Amino acid sequence: MDACTSALLTDFYQLTMLRAYQVHGMRETAAFELFVRRMPEERNFLIAAGLEQSLDFLENLYFSSDELEWVSSEPRLGREFADYLAGLRFSGDVHAMPEGRIFFPEEPILRVVAPLPEAQLVETRLINLVQFQCMVAAKAARSVLIAPGKQLVDFGLRRAQGAEGGLLAARAAYVAGFAGTATVLAGAKFGLPLFGTMAHSYIQAHADESDAFARFAQVYPTGATLLIDTYDTEQAAHKVVAVARSLRQRNVAIAAVRLDSGDLGALAKSVRSIFDAAGFPAIRIFASGNLDEYRVAALLQCGAPIDGFGIGTSLVTSADAPSLDAVYKLQEYAGKPRRKRSAAKATWPGRKQVFRRYAPDGCMESDWLTEENDPTQGEPLLALVMKDGRRMAAPENLEAIRERAAADLARLPDRLRALAPADPPYPVHVSPRLRKLADEVDAMNPP
Amino acid sequence: MDACTSALLTDFYQLTMLRAYQVHGMRETAAFELFVRRMPEERNFLIAAGLEQSLDFLENLYFSSDELEWVSSEPRLGREFADYLAGLRFSGDVHAMPEGRIFFPEEPILRVVAPLPEAQLVETRLINLVQFQCMVAAKAARSVLIAPGKQLVDFGLRRAQGAEGGLLAARAAYVAGFAGTATVLAGAKFGLPLFGTMAHSYIQAHADESDAFARFAQVYPTGATLLIDTYDTEQAAHKVVAVARSLRQRNVAIAAVRLDSGDLGALAKSVRSIFDAAGFPAIRIFASGNLDEYRVAALLQCGAPIDGFGIGTSLVTSADAPSLDAVYKLQEYAGKPRRKRSAAKATWPGRKQVFRRYAPDGCMESDWLTEENDPTQGEPLLALVMKDGRRMAAPENLEAIRERAAADLARLPDRLRALAPADPPYPVHVSPRLRKLADEVDAMNPP
Repeated sequence: MDACTSALLTDFYQLTMLRAYQVHGMRETAAFELFVRRMPEERNFLIAAGLEQSLDFLENLYFSSDELEWVSSEPRLGREFADYLAGLRFSGDVHAMPEGRIFFPEEPILRVVAPLPEAQLVETRLINLVQFQCMVAAKAARSVLIAPGKQLVDFGLRRAQGAEGGLLAARAAYVAGFAGTATVLAGAKFGLPLFGTMAHSYIQAHADESDAFARFAQVYPTGATLLIDTYDTEQAAHKVVAVARSLRQRNVAIAAVRLDSGDLGALAKSVRSIFDAAGFPAIRIFASGNLDEYRVAALLQCGAPIDGFGIGTSLVTSADAPSLDAVYKLQEYAGKPRRKRSAAKATWPGRKQVFRRYAPDGCMESDWLTEENDPTQGEPLLALVMKDGRRMAAPENLEAIRERAAADLARLPDRLRALAPADPPYPVHVSPRLRKLADEVDAMNPP
Repeated sequence: MDACTSALLTDFYQLTMLRAYQVHGMRETAAFELFVRRMPEERNFLIAAGLEQSLDFLENLYFSSDELEWVSSEPRLGREFADYLAGLRFSGDVHAMPEGRIFFPEEPILRVVAPLPEAQLVETRLINLVQFQCMVAAKAARSVLIAPGKQLVDFGLRRAQGAEGGLLAARAAYVAGFAGTATVLAGAKFGLPLFGTMAHSYIQAHADESDAFARFAQVYPTGATLLIDTYDTEQAAHKVVAVARSLRQRNVAIAAVRLDSGDLGALAKSVRSIFDAAGFPAIRIFASGNLDEYRVAALLQCGAPIDGFGIGTSLVTSADAPSLDAVYKLQEYAGKPRRKRSAAKATWPGRKQVFRRYAPDGCMESDWLTEENDPTQGEPLLALVMKDGRRMAAPENLEAIRERAAADLARLPDRLRALAPADPPYPVHVSPRLRKLADEVDAMNPP
């Protein structure tokens, strides 16, 4: 029972509901939509990500024999229900926003249409996969927007929330425009560019810091990034110069240094001066150490000559907004639109589409939330991606997804590009026909 | 290449450092210690968790053939290095705090002693496994302490940060004293008690809310928890009464209802009155919906008659402190103590032990950070758990770990049990001998 692929990676209520549906023969077609209810205060926009993993999950969903054995042994489920689950596969349709698109709260980013038990069962893992990557992509995009031209690298695996958290955060950050990651598995699995320097322990394992630098540079004669803050950053910069001079005739060039502690802005300036004065203007300066988009913005604003940033914990945990209020709600069952009316949690009923309109300068102007077949003007964002449980196309190339995100980020109005809350926020209008439908659904189901 | 078990789930610099160590023949014994540098402002103590997964990782570490293939194909690593990795296993010793123990910053919770390359390679995944579970256990314990006697259930999988995040959060919360989880896989894998109710979609898929209640109760005649906030909570409570009455002669009893929106305190009171007045005092009230320890405390303080709480997103993401500043630092190499002196990130050198002292009333009084063999008074917290790459004992029973946590929580001084920051914080003293060693190490390695 592998954590990332087990059919048991779901909430217990999915199984108890399924058993009730099975007992009562409820398997009409249901339409569920996945959307974010509210924008975190710290965000101006979100980025769609995680669709590839979602489709993979749906296409490969089944209960293995040891999982069925467990179901049989659970008194609230039992053998008969396990036999039913043994034949269960996902046979439905999926509409979705392509990965990389910018989106906003209330907009469905994924719709599942399938027999009720299938559509219900997949709720937990779909939210789990989609909300996390959307959240990290949105967080990453903030650094991308405020540090144009800088090399941004995901350093977050060690403090990610579990293995998959680290792996998929690397992917989401790349979608949003990061240059790559330190997570090896994300390189091997997704083809992400890999970056790495050295740890303090590498320096400490040597009796002499200069020896540590020289040895590493000789193994990586064109690509070494040396960590220079283990003892004294400026003294280490002078040692780097000496090592670079002594190895020059052996065709070894130091590529970069990394600063990981202290006053990064001031240290970057003095280290830059040391390298420039010594005739090594090509040695680049990379910074890390509890960075986030706010600290990166502050460093750039004070003119710190830093060429790249390693951003870790704050990125992969989306530290200032560590979850999106993502939900997966029944909008139609057996041909009838449905609507939840719980206090502050009401939803718009039926199958929906999102249309985007652009200003004459090409910037995004407004989105319209409509019924699926409403003839609204604009660019429709949702498209059919899975039919009868099979993908409509091969997995998308990650580079294409990344370019789509870059294109959407380029069309973002200026007030949404800043780190501060946009005033006014981006407008998402609800179409008159959809409002009318909601009233009709309420009238049919008086409390 | 499975996300949770791949040897490539590491930082790229681990591999580039290893290759440099291999080229230069550096494989003396290294001692690394894993500890948390600083306490988050929102926490008064931490709980050790994740050791079981760490030992499992160390015992099973190897590079598979497709992983080695990838290493060969990466220009910065290459075939020769892949051949070296093919033979690499973890052959070291591990000292650790048993899971469930309370601990504090600067205290090593795990020490690895192994040939340098092995000890270095495992850094990323060890931090990834340990910091996350310690973080969630500490977060969960806060709810456990402020809601004694209440049934606390982890509801967090859907907004956990990836699959493993959800799975291990369930385990960590159980260690800290939660009653169980909704995550099925955590039940199947770790034997955790499973809890589940129903989703709003279950209610909405029925034309009539009362029908939905009755059908579910008939399938689960002793254990049904009915969700009553889909349309109008108080009206739904009256429907529950009617259903309970009509099904009583068929030996069906409603176990509980769940409130998921609105003013939970006020609704719990009115729903309690409705049930009591109708002669159903045994129907319990369970609450959920963006809860955390602060909201649970507020509800209990205003006397809300709530029997249990589902706590999800805030728990599994540790929302108010979504990471611990956990690090893994080289403290000794080739028999010599080492120390990092970076600004604000200096570490205590050498192999260490933590001794705990208790007040006459049995409460924890202070901890002492010492050299490993310092004859300090108190209870030593670190013990040998792995020798030459093999565990010293079979995996610990989760119930025993949970009891250990409960015993430590019972010995916590009152000021640390509150949600507010403890004043003064728990004292962790550094032994005079350890301070002297740090000075000696500094003197041997002038900047």
